[in-house]
Amino acid sequence: MPKKKCAKTSGQLTLRQVAIDTYRENVAYMHRECGIYRAEGFQALSKIEVSANGNTILAMLNVVDDDSLVAPGELGLSEQAFEQMKLEAGAPVSVAHAEPPASMEALRKKIAGKRLEAKEFLAIARDIAAHRYSKVELAAFLVAADQAGLDRDEVLYLTQAMTDTGTRLNWHEPLVADKHCIGGIPGNRTSMLVVPIVAAHGMLIPKTSSRAITSPSGTADTMEVLAEVELSPDKLHHIIRHQRGCIGWGGTANLAPVDDVLISVERPLSIDSPGQMVASILSKKLSAGSTHLLIDIPVGPSAKVRHMHQALALRKLFEFVGDRLGIHLEVVITDGRQPIGRGIGPVLEARDVMQVLNNDPDAPDDLRQKALRLAGRVLEFDPDVRGGQGYAIARDILESGRALAKMNDIIESQGRRAQPPTPGELSFEIRTQTAGTVIEIDNYHMARLARFAGAPMDKGAGVDLLKKLGDTVRKGEPLYRIHAEFKSDYDFALRMTEQHGSGYRLGSAEQLPKAYVEF
Amino acid sequence: MPKKKCAKTSGQLTLRQVAIDTYRENVAYMHRECGIYRAEGFQALSKIEVSANGNTILAMLNVVDDDSLVAPGELGLSEQAFEQMKLEAGAPVSVAHAEPPASMEALRKKIAGKRLEAKEFLAIARDIAAHRYSKVELAAFLVAADQAGLDRDEVLYLTQAMTDTGTRLNWHEPLVADKHCIGGIPGNRTSMLVVPIVAAHGMLIPKTSSRAITSPSGTADTMEVLAEVELSPDKLHHIIRHQRGCIGWGGTANLAPVDDVLISVERPLSIDSPGQMVASILSKKLSAGSTHLLIDIPVGPSAKVRHMHQALALRKLFEFVGDRLGIHLEVVITDGRQPIGRGIGPVLEARDVMQVLNNDPDAPDDLRQKALRLAGRVLEFDPDVRGGQGYAIARDILESGRALAKMNDIIESQGRRAQPPTPGELSFEIRTQTAGTVIEIDNYHMARLARFAGAPMDKGAGVDLLKKLGDTVRKGEPLYRIHAEFKSDYDFALRMTEQHGSGYRLGSAEQLPKAYVEF
Repeated sequence: MPKKKCAKTSGQLTLRQVAIDTYRENVAYMHRECGIYRAEGFQALSKIEVSANGNTILAMLNVVDDDSLVAPGELGLSEQAFEQMKLEAGAPVSVAHAEPPASMEALRKKIAGKRLEAKEFLAIARDIAAHRYSKVELAAFLVAADQAGLDRDEVLYLTQAMTDTGTRLNWHEPLVADKHCIGGIPGNRTSMLVVPIVAAHGMLIPKTSSRAITSPSGTADTMEVLAEVELSPDKLHHIIRHQRGCIGWGGTANLAPVDDVLISVERPLSIDSPGQMVASILSKKLSAGSTHLLIDIPVGPSAKVRHMHQALALRKLFEFVGDRLGIHLEVVITDGRQPIGRGIGPVLEARDVMQVLNNDPDAPDDLRQKALRLAGRVLEFDPDVRGGQGYAIARDILESGRALAKMNDIIESQGRRAQPPTPGELSFEIRTQTAGTVIEIDNYHMARLARFAGAPMDKGAGVDLLKKLGDTVRKGEPLYRIHAEFKSDYDFALRMTEQHGSGYRLGSAEQLPKAYVEF
Repeated sequence: MPKKKCAKTSGQLTLRQVAIDTYRENVAYMHRECGIYRAEGFQALSKIEVSANGNTILAMLNVVDDDSLVAPGELGLSEQAFEQMKLEAGAPVSVAHAEPPASMEALRKKIAGKRLEAKEFLAIARDIAAHRYSKVELAAFLVAADQAGLDRDEVLYLTQAMTDTGTRLNWHEPLVADKHCIGGIPGNRTSMLVVPIVAAHGMLIPKTSSRAITSPSGTADTMEVLAEVELSPDKLHHIIRHQRGCIGWGGTANLAPVDDVLISVERPLSIDSPGQMVASILSKKLSAGSTHLLIDIPVGPSAKVRHMHQALALRKLFEFVGDRLGIHLEVVITDGRQPIGRGIGPVLEARDVMQVLNNDPDAPDDLRQKALRLAGRVLEFDPDVRGGQGYAIARDILESGRALAKMNDIIESQGRRAQPPTPGELSFEIRTQTAGTVIEIDNYHMARLARFAGAPMDKGAGVDLLKKLGDTVRKGEPLYRIHAEFKSDYDFALRMTEQHGSGYRLGSAEQLPKAYVEF
């Protein structure tokens, strides 16, 4: 019904830029005494269409009572909106009530719990990509898709739609590899080892990484300790062409833009359904031009996936969608019972990674082993590598120093940090009151603690694990060390351990939970 | 996890008002070069807390690049946000990252499809009332509650929570009556008849009305043809005390504010689940101080409720919640097969109402009968009125002219419109191609047509029905007349009838669907 007003001819206003940054949300400013505002019956916060020269954008309306900001007869646009109009200030523009997005019917169908077809997902993805969905409509789509559930065909349609509504890179090579972990395990920085090993072998692995959103560090945050990560798409391409790999932040490319929009709404709601996860990961990888992909699903009592049967179901879903979209996809289910390596937080994790690359005898063995196994599986995507030989090749590349050399090349091309930050100087150790064997380390607890200490914003903040699962500890021995850069964070983290415990559980060696996983 | 930063001490800024009306959404403006903006790592569109003198409000952050708007060291607030701070410009305020709402855990539980307890609904309602929920969180709550469903205890808890988080009027009288229709039937302006009849009897009926949101006219829109409806709460009270009734717009009172917030999100998503509907209606009525309430549920193939079994289930739900919250509640299920009266649109509906009050022999009989029956049931809330006598009393009040006199008194106290608008001068008639009996009039179609013609914004626009169910028509006879005030609307409505038909169906008298309802 509200479609009506769009058919009316609307009045003309003079365009003006308002120097306000409203990020992902276009905002238009009209004066309350403006004739068109009054005549059209617009309301503050309603969505309007702004058009000129065949170019139309959508914006949320704010009403202005100050002539110096926007005068009657003018239409102000926030910085991002102004840029999208591609016009000079002073140009004439027309405004009208915005039509509801064309896919509203499909959205309502999903809200009503019904199954959607491929073309309906495509319609929704197109409207989201064109910023025609309000936050309310986005949240409604996500919650409805989460609750009514997506069957595996629907996950396929959604993935396809998210891929088709963005740029898709083409590397013009038959084998473009990538690896991806579904997340949830602190310290799990295997990408920073797999990329140099695989690239040193000569295989193309154009991996871009994300920053932490709810975790204490993302690969991009940790790499930033060593090198620049905010690179232009052109520079990223140049590095990948020359080095065969790269460890940069992926936020600058326009790959699967619908995924970015959906994630911005999923995170605050903690929606993380298998269907959304598969569609999000695979649409990004397909858009990045990957032909071969290794997925890492860690399983453990405090991991994202807590039971083996869930991991297997998730694997099947990845395989179903991946096979139908023509990507060579393999899934490994790994040990997610505890953090990987010792450090949690950018500086501490970067230290672990460099120890492994330097073949330092103190390097955390679990990080080294996991990275070698993952790299080995990626190397086996190469038709010339015999099944089962990948691990040995990866180990040779690491032990020979070729992985370190490649990492240094990558760091130099991205831009080496002159003075790498060091661990936060305010530190304290958490010690046991009893003796025993470590039988549990809570991933979620340790991640939270590192966040409270200041990670990832304060690079040197975080947690350094001194004991891992299976280690025996004497009474009074330290379990881990917390590093912070600021007193307030130091106090905050300290208080958390006092209130919520250490996150460790001690017991006898027999109580140690077994991990029935590949590695 | 994002709680962390709230514990930090935050810097002080100087308060400034920014003359921008952002309606229900508080917006704060900070300069990009502001030290605190940079130090705290705020992001555009993130939610921040602004505090001073123990008063805290939440606002969405916009980043400014123009010193004349907001300079570094200043904090700008949009008009509504500035007002909430209750401070002079220039006062010092502090800002911090906003804590996530306390009820997020309950919200996530509902998203996960679980049942919530009374205290969890109260926590959610409190956060919504305090504007702590973003649009995303609101949409998530509504869709989750819609899909996972609310059992009847949950509807009770939600109603109670929505009532407890707003003002509750107390009229200090034992009997405060109200009536409410769940909506969906065009032209159904019985309130404008029930209120004067009941008030003329001396019973207190402090009814406030709503404006149309998706319908072609709300009671407030129709009443506005005759009188002022935007009255201050004080004036509303004064009129109700003196006249025993009132027909004003309810938007100015702060009754069940959570309902207003939820509705603003429900409407664009077309969410209208029974649970939400019952909680919305009953929380508003309890807040308005009603002790006795008559609910009208129209049933028909193009009504909101399409089958009798759904109407009965809805009635039980109203009764369950009403009984437990101590309101005397009765539900009548009425004939919703077609629009009520002849006019659809403010001016045409006001004409129908005044014809009934004037005892005009041309007055639409279905509107008259329905209003008398509803008024009769309300009058029977009076312990001195014998069961079954209400209708006769209502008819006496109407036929004696006392209802008309009361309506005129109400109009005078609200403020009579000097020159009532007239039906739109652009009009055309829709005629049949065949002869037969009218066996169907589509409520939804007729409402849409009246909207397209310009209602409710253009008071004189709408549809005037010349034939109703059961009427026989000859070939070429007019079914209804469309009125518009503007040429573009006229064309728009005309095109709709060409593309989507008349909304009428003709057949033989035996095909006329029966209505198995009370009246």
